[in-house]
Amino acid sequence: MREKKDGSVVVSTTVLYASRNLGVVEDKLQHPTAGRRDCRYLWMSPQVRVVPLTPGGKLVLIREFKYPNNDYFLGVPAGKKREGETIFAAAKRELEEETSYTTESFVDLGAFHPMAKTLQQDAGSVLALDVRPLSPHQYYNHDAYEKASISVILMDPAEVVAAVDASQLTDGQALAVLFKAFVHLGLVMPRQIPTQLAFSG
Amino acid sequence: MREKKDGSVVVSTTVLYASRNLGVVEDKLQHPTAGRRDCRYLWMSPQVRVVPLTPGGKLVLIREFKYPNNDYFLGVPAGKKREGETIFAAAKRELEEETSYTTESFVDLGAFHPMAKTLQQDAGSVLALDVRPLSPHQYYNHDAYEKASISVILMDPAEVVAAVDASQLTDGQALAVLFKAFVHLGLVMPRQIPTQLAFSG
Repeated sequence: MREKKDGSVVVSTTVLYASRNLGVVEDKLQHPTAGRRDCRYLWMSPQVRVVPLTPGGKLVLIREFKYPNNDYFLGVPAGKKREGETIFAAAKRELEEETSYTTESFVDLGAFHPMAKTLQQDAGSVLALDVRPLSPHQYYNHDAYEKASISVILMDPAEVVAAVDASQLTDGQALAVLFKAFVHLGLVMPRQIPTQLAFSG
Repeated sequence: MREKKDGSVVVSTTVLYASRNLGVVEDKLQHPTAGRRDCRYLWMSPQVRVVPLTPGGKLVLIREFKYPNNDYFLGVPAGKKREGETIFAAAKRELEEETSYTTESFVDLGAFHPMAKTLQQDAGSVLALDVRPLSPHQYYNHDAYEKASISVILMDPAEVVAAVDASQLTDGQALAVLFKAFVHLGLVMPRQIPTQLAFSG
């Protein structure tokens, strides 16, 4: 489709960079009132992010080395959704691979766009309920690097909130899906913000 | 620095694509136990995201056409942090340009990594308190396209929570900084998740 929802018409498309999982694209556009402009954006292959919850109400998070930022980050299990795989199958696989927990009980947390202005990606978010540790003989064979770089951390919601407040949980993807999960679980109270706070800072 | 915090040593770096605001980089790494591996990542120029709050406790959000996903998205004012600009100066400028609201009262919401595993970016998040409409003679001259593509929407926290729950607010960047702001404002209640819910789904 050459005409977009804002009335822009695509004049030309140039693929600036492409690999199997990532592309950089530049479109030249003609807008009915704003004239010509260029729009450069990314696409990435489909992914799923999982918020796992134990029967006792703990969140199963991971601590993982994230190379581009040269540091360890608190986050949620996540990974590629393979061709033909349902969002729940991908969520179950990534949950098992990255945490050694599993479940059969999933809730789709709905549409999710990691960086809507910059990135075109099919990115799912899933709440995994009643997650329990796999028995040792069910363990997946992780590759050596993943084994060395991921640790599993159980936190209750109060600890997650404290970690967000203290900037110990700073990955935007984890923050976004945890917000969706907390809203779904009724942990975000939509009361009025005290006027005093709104005024004073 | 050639040695990273996980013990990896950078063997070589290849810039696969680079423009002024965006790059794709591939590093070849040697890990002490996991052997050789490649890591491909993005960098983007610095940005700031703003959560604006009126004296009456309303959030000033925007609805904007986001080209890569060919749709209009609810989000927060955001944009580039210019060279030499403080995070608060950038927040004030983007707030004024995108909403025609302003303030002098900002709170740094702390460290934020939009996609920690994929993207290296200096990305700030700021709470703007006591925001008020600019008087008409103070309006910035937006470019024609921005004028046509952004509308301002005031929502109270309950409406934001409802929009998240209904998947009407799906931009990961907006979700992440709104979560940080809601935690800062004490709107996320860290009570125990009911065991029944954790069990049943």
